[in-house]
Parts: sequence; structure tokens; C-alpha cells
Amino acid sequence: MVTTAIHKVNFYDTDAMAVVHHANYIRWFEIGRVEFLRAAGITLTEMMDDGYVFPITEVSAKYMNSARFDDELLIETTPEALTKAKMAFTYRVLRKSDNLLLVTGRTQNVFTSMETGHITRLPAKYYERLQKALE
Amino acid sequence: MVTTAIHKVNFYDTDAMAVVHHANYIRWFEIGRVEFLRAAGITLTEMMDDGYVFPITEVSAKYMNSARFDDELLIETTPEALTKAKMAFTYRVLRKSDNLLLVTGRTQNVFTSMETGHITRLPAKYYERLQKALE
Amino acid sequence: MVTTAIHKVNFYDTDAMAVVHHANYIRWFEIGRVEFLRAAGITLTEMMDDGYVFPITEVSAKYMNSARFDDELLIETTPEALTKAKMAFTYRVLRKSDNLLLVTGRTQNVFTSMETGHITRLPAKYYERLQKALE
Amino acid sequence: MVTTAIHKVNFYDTDAMAVVHHANYIRWFEIGRVEFLRAAGITLTEMMDDGYVFPITEVSAKYMNSARFDDELLIETTPEALTKAKMAFTYRVLRKSDNLLLVTGRTQNVFTSMETGHITRLPAKYYERLQKALE
Repeated sequence: MVTTAIHKVNFYDTDAMAVVHHANYIRWFEIGRVEFLRAAGITLTEMMDDGYVFPITEVSAKYMNSARFDDELLIETTPEALTKAKMAFTYRVLRKSDNLLLVTGRTQNVFTSMETGHITRLPAKYYERLQKALE
Repeated sequence: MVTTAIHKVNFYDTDAMAVVHHANYIRWFEIGRVEFLRAAGITLTEMMDDGYVFPITEVSAKYMNSARFDDELLIETTPEALTKAKMAFTYRVLRKSDNLLLVTGRTQNVFTSMETGHITRLPAKYYERLQKALE
Repeated sequence: MVTTAIHKVNFYDTDAMAVVHHANYIRWFEIGRVEFLRAAGITLTEMMDDGYVFPITEVSAKYMNSARFDDELLIETTPEALTKAKMAFTYRVLRKSDNLLLVTGRTQNVFTSMETGHITRLPAKYYERLQKALE
Repeated sequence: MVTTAIHKVNFYDTDAMAVVHHANYIRWFEIGRVEFLRAAGITLTEMMDDGYVFPITEVSAKYMNSARFDDELLIETTPEALTKAKMAFTYRVLRKSDNLLLVTGRTQNVFTSMETGHITRLPAKYYERLQKALE
């Protein structure tokens, strides 16, 4: 399963070079990731209510082209690895009007118990949904 | 007591008009408020550990002049009212190099119990510190 | 004309009180304002290409209820005054699921010439579109 | 030359997991980078006035530990490569109180002409300063 989220560039997303500030794409990867998990039947709220948090351990991005105010962006999210211990996703951010590839990226999360603060393994309830999403 | 915090404008604080995006000043009022409370012997972390949160109920700002990347700003914070139920502050943001007044503003917080979610009255422990800061 | 924009609360919009940080609503007023102007046939990009910027001179907000991660928000934008010299809008931000009113606000912009840096009057081209939107 | 910038974590830097949102570190690498360049005698404003912009082409980060509200952070910036065509830096973000390593990262910029929009080579004026900073 690959999911595509849409984000329209706001004026407050730009910087004094008149393009989107590069750190915003790291935020937008989150929009893509949340959308992917929702499509898999998982919401972050449900996981937090169950006592799990999911801190990011790695992030990377390559920037090919700049987005500007008012551009509509497509955030494609592809699962790379979804295990009981971690989730890794890759991303492609494209300009919707002409499909120009702007940014590619990758993130990795681990699952952590809110109670202990330690890395933990995901219960079957969530793992099964992630596995279905990988098929 | 009036406190002054310093903030240097980052590149990511600017927008495509090449000046600081106006919403950032609302964030920087928070820097001023936190600094004032610290000078009064109060940290937000201590209040949260004691079960209090302090949501903003009102905010306003007037913008006179624009700050730019790399400007050093002074954030002056003056208490307007500090009661057991709420805190109101006024702010002046100035450019440090020439004391040009950029923005004025005002915020109001209420104290809320994390347990009940309802507005609550501040215990003497905090109230006394705030009163000293008002003198 | 009253316009309604939609914004889904991202995880990065929240703060350690587990609700949306109050400064974000000031950003979201911009989403509403841009949407209103677009409905009136005006894009900020066109105005900037024509040499106009539109700095905010005043902003205010009252916070009634908190939004949380994943909430869908409606941003209602109503023109209060649209003259050749300035634009004022009022806003209502509601939770879409139950129409709960979260935040109300108001902003005021002036039109400024990029060339001179001074406040200027809007040319007929834009003014006529704004007047139609007011009807 | 290695430079160290300081950033105190603001409340608005946190998210609903009560720690700093991971995208903020990418912004803070910029604080470190700007500080390094300043120590080398280069300001972004001067470069922009001379017609150069310096878009980020790559960014990566590894997250070891979380920062919380009010933590004082050290942002160490080390040049990896400073050529006429690009700048690469590595970063270490540490908690000041106990030197705990929180995040490591790397960024790469290219120099671009504002006039042509194309990648360009840095003039001697800047290159010499960067070379001195590398010694």
C-alpha cells in the first residue's frame, strides 16, 4: 500500500528565499505517515491511549526542487519496514500541477512504552494491521 | 517587575515577504512570559508536575515595524494582572540595535486543573510568588 | 461572502499540554484569509508580482476550547472592512465533528508598496474584486 | 573551527508526547550553521545582498534522546566540506546540564544565483573566509 496525502503550501511555510523552508518537509513527512497509518486502521491517538509513543529515531531528506506559496503538494508514503519494533517509511513530495519531484525522504520510528520509557514491541492488535498494509 | 528576554531572529522565522512572519511574535510573547515567571520563581514544568495547566484565553498584538533575519529582539514583559484565577501580561518587542518598537501585545491565561479540566484557583505557593513579582 | 477553509490538526501542531499551541490559530487565520481572497479572485502571488505586500497590523484571538491532534477544523472567514487602504477580517474556528466553537479572532492588513516600503492604496483591479466579495 | 550555539527549548517547541518535536532539530541545525558562518565572517544577509542563495540539498538526523521544555541545548557545528560549490556541516545537539547527546545530523547546501536560479560557484571573497574557518 502506498498512500498520498495532499498539502497546500501556506504563506507561513515560506522563508525569506521565497520558497518553502526545508524543515517543513520533515513535518509533512509526518502528514504522510499519519495518513498511511490511518489507511491501515491505526491512529496515533489510539496508540497513545494504549500507552505507546513512537519517537522518530532517524530522518533524512534530499531536496531537488523548491515549492512555493500556494503550490499543492502530493506526499507519497511507502512502507519500507514495519516490524514489531519499528516502522520505516520512504516519502516522495511532488508538485501536483506537473508532478515535479521536489523532495524524497525516509524516517524511522521505534515503539516506546509511555510507562517505562523503554523501547517495546508492538502488540498483535497493531502489528496485524501494519502487516495487512504491507501486502 | 518588568523582565526582558532576548531572541535573535532565525532564518526560519522569516516568510516570503523577507520579514518575520507575524504569528511568530505570539510565540515570542511566550518566551517573555516564561522568562517573567522564571524571574518570579515559577517554572511551567513545576506547575504541570503539580497538576496545573495554563491555557491562553486571549491574545492580541499590534504590529508597527518588521523584524528581519538576524535582528536581535528584546521582549519586554509587564504583568497587568496576576490573580489566583488568571494572569494577564503586556509585551513590547523592540529591535535591540536601535530600540525601535516593533510589536506590542497582551495575553491572558487561566489556571486549569489537569485532573478535572476545569478552571481552578492557584494555590498560595504560586500566588505568593506572583504577588512578590508584582510589587 | 463568508468562506470556510478546512485544516486537519497535525501532530506537530500540538504542544506538551496535548492540545494545539495557541499561536497556530494565528497561522490558520491566514489559511482562512487566503481562501477568502482566492474566492474573491485574488491571490497573494499576483499581488506580490504587482509590487504589493500586505503586512498584518493587528491581530487578536479569544480561545474558548482546545483542539487536539487529528481534529478537523473549520476556519470561517468574514470580511469586516475591505477598503483601498486596508482589509479587516473576523474568524471563527470550529471543530467540524460537532461544530464546537474553539477560537474567534480578527486581523487587519494594510497594503504596502514593495518599492517604497510605504502604505499605499490598492489599485481598482483588486479593489473591485474585494467589493464584489463584500456584496 | 567548531562552533557552539545555545538554544533554550520553548514550550511551543514541544509536542503532545511532551518532548521536542523532531522537525525542530532540523531548524536548530540552521541556528548552528548561521553561527558557524558568522564566526567565519559571513552573514546570510550579505550573501543574499550579493545575489546568492544557499538552498539545502540534503539533511539527515539521528535521534538518541529527547529534549524537554526549558532544557538548554548546545548545538555544535563542524564543517565537513566547504568548497566553492557547496557547504556540508555535521551537528551534535547536547543537553547542556549533563552533556547528554540528543541528536546528530548533517546538512548540505549549494550556492545558487538569485538571478539565474542556477547553481553557481562562490566568489573568492566568501571562499577565502570559509577556508580560514576550516583551518
